[in-house]
Amino acid sequence: MTLKAFQDYYPDNYSHCYGCGRLNPKGLQIKSYWDGEESICHFEPQAYYSGGFSDYLYGGLVASLMDCHGAGTAAAAKAKELGIDPEKEPFPRFVTAALKVNYLKPTPVDVTLEIRGRVISIEGRKVRVDLTLNARGKICAEGEVLMIQIPEEN
Amino acid sequence: MTLKAFQDYYPDNYSHCYGCGRLNPKGLQIKSYWDGEESICHFEPQAYYSGGFSDYLYGGLVASLMDCHGAGTAAAAKAKELGIDPEKEPFPRFVTAALKVNYLKPTPVDVTLEIRGRVISIEGRKVRVDLTLNARGKICAEGEVLMIQIPEEN
Repeated sequence: MTLKAFQDYYPDNYSHCYGCGRLNPKGLQIKSYWDGEESICHFEPQAYYSGGFSDYLYGGLVASLMDCHGAGTAAAAKAKELGIDPEKEPFPRFVTAALKVNYLKPTPVDVTLEIRGRVISIEGRKVRVDLTLNARGKICAEGEVLMIQIPEEN
Repeated sequence: MTLKAFQDYYPDNYSHCYGCGRLNPKGLQIKSYWDGEESICHFEPQAYYSGGFSDYLYGGLVASLMDCHGAGTAAAAKAKELGIDPEKEPFPRFVTAALKVNYLKPTPVDVTLEIRGRVISIEGRKVRVDLTLNARGKICAEGEVLMIQIPEEN
């Protein structure tokens, strides 16, 4: 039995995201999980996601990984708060309201990256998540997202 | 004679970016220009850059467009400040230090987007740019970037 990722519980109509949708064959299909109180995602980017210099990742992908991992973390945190069994009940869906990224060091392209999320607050439909992106044990970028839950009737 | 974009003046060793590098065949290859005091970029995303719902763009691409258009705008603004003739002298290169995006409305995937930049400040190697992303005449997202110039000896 394989552990399901947060994104594996998104309903089909919400699984088309280039960053994290399991039904987007051209996309990155990132997978996020709990690791204790934090959430974690490992991802090795293709070399063509480079920045201006070919050795480093482009800033947009760093932002994308934080955005999608942040959305998954918000959904999983809300599910946990509500006591939802994602095998039997609809998994919450979130959209991004705000994203901030601080780029601390160049991120290399040729390694597996680790993105970690920490839930800062859950206030009704609003969930805030702080994020870090690590490469070779060093934090290359930090970020935060504000995610808003989509009402289930939509 | 065709008007050259900001990105066409990047040196070869800095033209590999997935978002804006003219030497990245898999990339988006966005092109930015002056439009009076503002900078402008038009881009029509492929449908597979969708978000969770297939009708809308994923947040990571919105962030990527702002990041790359912001970097190009910073470089062009610095070149203008220094009186650089980009046909004869090296065009400045910038890296992203910080990126903020506020997502105001869902961004449709099936239209040409307009990204606009406005230079807020140039302080030595630091350039701040405010950005908007419009679709069908409506602002779907607004953002700001802090760009840092790479010293020419590197």
